[in-house]
Amino acid sequence: MATRKEQLHLGAFIYFTGHHHAGWLHPESGAEDMFSFDMYRQLAQTAERGKFDMMFLADLLYATPYDQATTGMLDPLTLLSALSAVTSKLGLTATVSTTYNEPYNVARKISSLDHISEGRAGWNIVTSQLDIEAHNYGKEKHPEHGLRYEMAREFVEVVTRLWDSWPEDALVRNRETGQFIDASKLQTVDYKGQWFSSKGPLNVPRSPQGYPVLIQAGSSGPGQDFAASFGEVIFTAQQSLSAAKAFYESVKSKLSNYGRSQDSQKIMPGLSPIIAATEEEAQRKYKQLQELISPEAAVATLSGMLQFDLSSYPVDQPLPDIPDPVAASNGMKSRVQLIMDIARQEQLSILQLGRRMLESRGHLQFVGTYEQLADLIQLWFEEYACDGFNIMPPVLPGNLNEFVDHVIPILQARGLFRTEYTGNTLREHLGLVRPEPGHFQTEGKTEQVGSGI
Amino acid sequence: MATRKEQLHLGAFIYFTGHHHAGWLHPESGAEDMFSFDMYRQLAQTAERGKFDMMFLADLLYATPYDQATTGMLDPLTLLSALSAVTSKLGLTATVSTTYNEPYNVARKISSLDHISEGRAGWNIVTSQLDIEAHNYGKEKHPEHGLRYEMAREFVEVVTRLWDSWPEDALVRNRETGQFIDASKLQTVDYKGQWFSSKGPLNVPRSPQGYPVLIQAGSSGPGQDFAASFGEVIFTAQQSLSAAKAFYESVKSKLSNYGRSQDSQKIMPGLSPIIAATEEEAQRKYKQLQELISPEAAVATLSGMLQFDLSSYPVDQPLPDIPDPVAASNGMKSRVQLIMDIARQEQLSILQLGRRMLESRGHLQFVGTYEQLADLIQLWFEEYACDGFNIMPPVLPGNLNEFVDHVIPILQARGLFRTEYTGNTLREHLGLVRPEPGHFQTEGKTEQVGSGI
Repeated sequence: MATRKEQLHLGAFIYFTGHHHAGWLHPESGAEDMFSFDMYRQLAQTAERGKFDMMFLADLLYATPYDQATTGMLDPLTLLSALSAVTSKLGLTATVSTTYNEPYNVARKISSLDHISEGRAGWNIVTSQLDIEAHNYGKEKHPEHGLRYEMAREFVEVVTRLWDSWPEDALVRNRETGQFIDASKLQTVDYKGQWFSSKGPLNVPRSPQGYPVLIQAGSSGPGQDFAASFGEVIFTAQQSLSAAKAFYESVKSKLSNYGRSQDSQKIMPGLSPIIAATEEEAQRKYKQLQELISPEAAVATLSGMLQFDLSSYPVDQPLPDIPDPVAASNGMKSRVQLIMDIARQEQLSILQLGRRMLESRGHLQFVGTYEQLADLIQLWFEEYACDGFNIMPPVLPGNLNEFVDHVIPILQARGLFRTEYTGNTLREHLGLVRPEPGHFQTEGKTEQVGSGI
Repeated sequence: MATRKEQLHLGAFIYFTGHHHAGWLHPESGAEDMFSFDMYRQLAQTAERGKFDMMFLADLLYATPYDQATTGMLDPLTLLSALSAVTSKLGLTATVSTTYNEPYNVARKISSLDHISEGRAGWNIVTSQLDIEAHNYGKEKHPEHGLRYEMAREFVEVVTRLWDSWPEDALVRNRETGQFIDASKLQTVDYKGQWFSSKGPLNVPRSPQGYPVLIQAGSSGPGQDFAASFGEVIFTAQQSLSAAKAFYESVKSKLSNYGRSQDSQKIMPGLSPIIAATEEEAQRKYKQLQELISPEAAVATLSGMLQFDLSSYPVDQPLPDIPDPVAASNGMKSRVQLIMDIARQEQLSILQLGRRMLESRGHLQFVGTYEQLADLIQLWFEEYACDGFNIMPPVLPGNLNEFVDHVIPILQARGLFRTEYTGNTLREHLGLVRPEPGHFQTEGKTEQVGSGI
């Protein structure tokens, strides 16, 4: 039945106790357990049972008491490492900021996870967005949007070169000759950037995947350029087939500028499924969740997403004109524009828009039967609107089980999705090549002396 | 038989593939596996089988090809998190530098490990020591010794206040009232230091232990003051009973200056055991290991430890006078002095001293029978030279099994060591109280506005 030769890819995006704002109030949520390991173990093992390519964890570097989804979360990389010990095939991908970390530490931690998991690590490369995050790191203000991407580019260059500092054959460990390491192979990187510098080499050998998989989620202009040069998996928020196809074509068309093949990058939009055996039951579930969202929460969260205070506007009226989002926000430019577009196209009131946003935080919300969801996934995949989806269950852990039990089997029966893992590493699941050293070294901002140490 | 009311505490110090320099050449070493998780899983489960209080991992922030023990190691905190999933009682303690990390990140990662492990995390607070580490973080030189301790003090103050930013009852998660968090409870910390600042609150709730256990290893003057104010476990290198008793008394006597009780701190010297059923067999094992150390390695490593190039000196002659170690080294002042003292007291040649250092890197090396080792442990413990030991097996994983199988049962039979875990958390194993918020807030360098956010 499938018209594309390859199969689709699926991520299990685990966030709070579900992506729906009121999900934690639902009886099937694990709200009591969101800081305990057992819930995440159960989720990871469910995703592996469903043959997902990977589990994906977001991150925020601040806490507020105003929205339960921003009260905090376990450190993603620390959590994934524990999950690596209770899974054997599932890819483990974590968001790690390039704004408030040291490249040497990040290179080492993610490489360590790749060693520990035997090749299942991935890094979602983000730039942190908010002044409230800057304040936790002793900074007054957040770096400006474009600058953050320049910093991120340097950061990734340092990290990948540190990963390259150990050629495959540097680690000898020959007991008979007494040679532990081949000193002529280990390389310094001598990276001197504007924001980040590191001499190297890294203190962890090249990891099973060569590089852990590089994931990127920026959809703005600088974000798309960054994605074209480094992103091997692209997470994106797309509300319609036509918009998704345009995005897919736009991002993929940039790959050749960086000497990359079309299949070196997998585009995976977010998709939040509210599903049941019948349409009526799915709609009932949807209404049940929406009614749990208070008007106060809807307005407050929408204000936060737009970075514009809506508390003095009537909730039953349309969204007012938001000042130029470029000027208004040093945050997620492309996301603000997307939200404004939805409000206008669907003529939603502030309350409706707020509730709509809290469904799935700007990502595609699906309500329907298991078969209908499989149809949508197949359509988007076969129309080259995506290479798969990042599944965002509205209520966790319950809804991930539901997707695995009812939707995965349909996709498998249609030949769209694997019935067993055929590889061991995340790169093998995604059909990505294992990069050679120097994979991303396209231009020379650095002094690469390459001397042995 | 025991004369102290409490029992002794044991750490399993896992380093490279054994603490002996030539340990990796030994047939029982896991040299092929030092970057794979399976070896560490086996070691952690062996330590837990032996009812150890904790496993301990050191750290270095650089790699060189000259000494196999400095070629690198998996990131300790990442590794411990994976080990938390395959153990249930063992304490998990990692070295994390205060010199090249952000306090907000460290507070969160260690708190996350404490959540994931259900209260088994500990943090060995160190200041990084070498310029070669500075270079990996874009710095030219390492901060000076005294300054690093001032920085470390600020770092720990920020971290502990971030841990305090969530009172126990801030996390409500009441589905009936819809209240996820009590906004009046969550506190900013508004720490403004000379080197580190953070607004807070942390984005992880207070962890099972309140604070993960704070471990400290500095034995110099500033190190001892730091240990007296913050250290709950003190790792130290002591070569003789008399020196250990003097150190114990000196460090414990400072506790009252900080309003702390004597039992709020456990002093645990390093101890590297080469053991067998008979003295002859133990001596044979010792000689076998020593002969594996090349003269080149002995001289190079000793030069590194002293930060003084010995390569032009005859290896069969005594150690030359090293210039004032305070001036010569911005590294481990107290360790350099200790090594010089050993050379003079025991009248060792450079080669003998180098090999001696490579046995156990300046820590106490024991060679003898299982019973004799138990006698030494009992004597030091009952003479108040220590509260237990950090066991440093010369060859890993083999020698940890040997200690667990042959020495632990003797200590248990003498009533000196637990036969079963009586608690679940590392604090419970160590007999340390669970700290209340503000535990270490003795003086006011900060602006603690304490406003709700």
